[in-house]
Amino acid sequence: VRETSPDRMPPDPHPLAPSAPVCAHLLTIGDEILAGDIVNTNAAFLGTRCRRIGLTVVRAQTVRDRVSEIVPAILEATRHARVCLVCGGLGPTSDDLTTVAVAEAAGVGVRRDAAALARLEAKFAALGRAMPEANRKQADFPAGADILDNPIGSAEGFALDLGGCRVFVMPGVPRELHKMMREQVEPWISEHLDLREVPRRIYRMLGRGESAVAEAISPVLAQARTRSPGLAAMFVHYRASMPEVQVVLEGTPGPDGVGATQDELAELDAPLLDAMGGALYGIGSASLAPRVIEGVRRAGHWIGTAESCTGGGVGQALASVPGASACFAGGIIAYDNRIKIEKLGVAESLLHEHGAVSEAVACAMAEGGRRALGVDLCVAITGIAGPSGGTPEKPVGTVHIAVCDADGSAHRRVQLRGDRGTVQRAAGAWALKLAWDRLGLRPSFMTSNEH
Amino acid sequence: VRETSPDRMPPDPHPLAPSAPVCAHLLTIGDEILAGDIVNTNAAFLGTRCRRIGLTVVRAQTVRDRVSEIVPAILEATRHARVCLVCGGLGPTSDDLTTVAVAEAAGVGVRRDAAALARLEAKFAALGRAMPEANRKQADFPAGADILDNPIGSAEGFALDLGGCRVFVMPGVPRELHKMMREQVEPWISEHLDLREVPRRIYRMLGRGESAVAEAISPVLAQARTRSPGLAAMFVHYRASMPEVQVVLEGTPGPDGVGATQDELAELDAPLLDAMGGALYGIGSASLAPRVIEGVRRAGHWIGTAESCTGGGVGQALASVPGASACFAGGIIAYDNRIKIEKLGVAESLLHEHGAVSEAVACAMAEGGRRALGVDLCVAITGIAGPSGGTPEKPVGTVHIAVCDADGSAHRRVQLRGDRGTVQRAAGAWALKLAWDRLGLRPSFMTSNEH
Repeated sequence: VRETSPDRMPPDPHPLAPSAPVCAHLLTIGDEILAGDIVNTNAAFLGTRCRRIGLTVVRAQTVRDRVSEIVPAILEATRHARVCLVCGGLGPTSDDLTTVAVAEAAGVGVRRDAAALARLEAKFAALGRAMPEANRKQADFPAGADILDNPIGSAEGFALDLGGCRVFVMPGVPRELHKMMREQVEPWISEHLDLREVPRRIYRMLGRGESAVAEAISPVLAQARTRSPGLAAMFVHYRASMPEVQVVLEGTPGPDGVGATQDELAELDAPLLDAMGGALYGIGSASLAPRVIEGVRRAGHWIGTAESCTGGGVGQALASVPGASACFAGGIIAYDNRIKIEKLGVAESLLHEHGAVSEAVACAMAEGGRRALGVDLCVAITGIAGPSGGTPEKPVGTVHIAVCDADGSAHRRVQLRGDRGTVQRAAGAWALKLAWDRLGLRPSFMTSNEH
Repeated sequence: VRETSPDRMPPDPHPLAPSAPVCAHLLTIGDEILAGDIVNTNAAFLGTRCRRIGLTVVRAQTVRDRVSEIVPAILEATRHARVCLVCGGLGPTSDDLTTVAVAEAAGVGVRRDAAALARLEAKFAALGRAMPEANRKQADFPAGADILDNPIGSAEGFALDLGGCRVFVMPGVPRELHKMMREQVEPWISEHLDLREVPRRIYRMLGRGESAVAEAISPVLAQARTRSPGLAAMFVHYRASMPEVQVVLEGTPGPDGVGATQDELAELDAPLLDAMGGALYGIGSASLAPRVIEGVRRAGHWIGTAESCTGGGVGQALASVPGASACFAGGIIAYDNRIKIEKLGVAESLLHEHGAVSEAVACAMAEGGRRALGVDLCVAITGIAGPSGGTPEKPVGTVHIAVCDADGSAHRRVQLRGDRGTVQRAAGAWALKLAWDRLGLRPSFMTSNEH
């Protein structure tokens, strides 16, 4: 493939104006990302961490494992950002070329570090294994780079100054990247750069479209902008991942350098709550599952699940919450109708009369699950995830959800769009929302400003 | 934040040499991606689709919703690629600026399209809703652009030529993007560009480290490279997402334009199988869950699950496979010990004597699940996902897996690393591998060259 006209000129030693606002570029390296074989969760992780410490990421790039493509990407990032976070390509195999490329971008050689080699050998020895020859190159670093420890893996990272930009190079293995970023990179950034976190406030909704939400809240936002220069400059994002929509308010500074404060944003809670209505389930970083778990836990209750088309997805979401064991008992995955009958006590006549995907069966599953599991609250789902199995009356995406507690059952039918996985995920989200509704929780419950 | 020195010069009308190999750049737009609030699955989707039709993606970029940052990114892509795929920022809200930015990059104005506006109004009318004023701007397009239909959403896309590059602009809503890419963009690309898919072969392993795999297969690869110019030029990737490792062979053409054929790559199956050993579970695009489902289905059997720490994740993975209903009966999520006793028949004495996370309990769960669910094969998992609950003897990440069939139970203890979600996902993958082993499947089962 065509070269992307590599720019091999030595970087300008002071490419950034001293008064330039501090920002970051991300560079993730790997053919497998560009070929779509893996989803770039590392870039999302780095973006989240930067935001938490107030460092704005203005661009993220991914290039292939080719020295001739990595070098210009590095040089470009260093011309526009104070910090460049690079990850991937530090492994032992022949397609791991990041170290060589960064050295070339910096105009220096690669040196094998004796201490790093000793650490590497010790790591293999500790595992009782001989070090493969291929791993030796993981002790190579650009001359003059500062090495970043990796106590949990073989790929150590490094940092170096390239012009006015600090370049951090980290491994692509997520847990190693996470540890290195948190423990070594973030402290350096916080110490050396004058950062101020931009206040944010997230409003989380389920069951209302993006443009309907925008229309409902626009008078509230317009009114707010008249109140202060900070609120006037406020940045509003809409994030839709159906059936969920989030509205994010950011206290981005305006031309006069003044941005809305966290308190100013929080004052918008009450009017926004009115405008958003029952779709709004929460303010802050917590998603539905931790809110449901915390609501059940505080009520001193136990929750269980009875799932058909989601096959365990709601149980998994609840179990993903640390501390779920305090109130999540378990569930019955009743994928086949036989299990609905035998384990949830759904009457065969109901299945015959209404079909497995029906209000009657969803409610019977929730009631039967509550009884069988001995829990206070049971969530049930039955639906047609596709791609086949739809009929004119019950097309693919038809899902019935029920929640049963001591006071009886609530039911909802939803018609979802998308492929099998999308329908399954959306069905699970709707089920958690119905549980949230049933618990009588408030959007202000578990408000946090973390994200 | 600092401007990224927008390059406003009109693009060179013929920036690409006519003989330049055809390649693509991706440009995804949105603050929420850079801030790490969402993972960029759209880029992965576009990468996968391009690979399938033989179009190599050499760079992917993400920029914020700012006209001054989108314009230079577009111009840069058009200078280096024959095709630029843009997605995001076509919505109705104030942070949707892609249309304006592309028009500016092309040096043309934005025009409201009367026919598009009529289509938009008809879509809202069909839903029985009044069209919000905000949506009107979704009928705006750069002058001279070709409109791309969006029958399932309000954001129509468009395409235009910018210099020698065809720029396609698509919505960020995944299902709308997918449909537009498959039905309108891919056909254009295949018709107008002379593409040849690069042969690939994927070997999928679980339970062996990346460098150990590399070392084991390097003699096989070295020998293969001596056989033909195509094999000599073969590109080898390693992808690790623990506990899984994949080796990808690609018939990338060498300097003489000759690449390995699919048949040449397939001839490496036998020696690679020997070298990779029992960790190798498959060749081709199918992951573990569809292989297990297909193996169970062909055997005429039924499978069920008994999950503790994974909370339904294995059931969900099985249910994610289209057609799973032919052989996946369901499962018991026995998160709390009470459910292990009451629903799986695990003896209380076992729990007291060995603890819930033990070989004895894992086997009892598998046997009890097989009986309770009336299935031929049952997979059971019990472990400590963390972050708390670990002890010196059973640290966080200790997981016991068992599979029970008519011939008895197989068991495996694994020690996993990472956070709660990582341990849960890895535990699920190990459980499916143990089921795969128990089914006696061969790696050549379900071989396909699709990915």
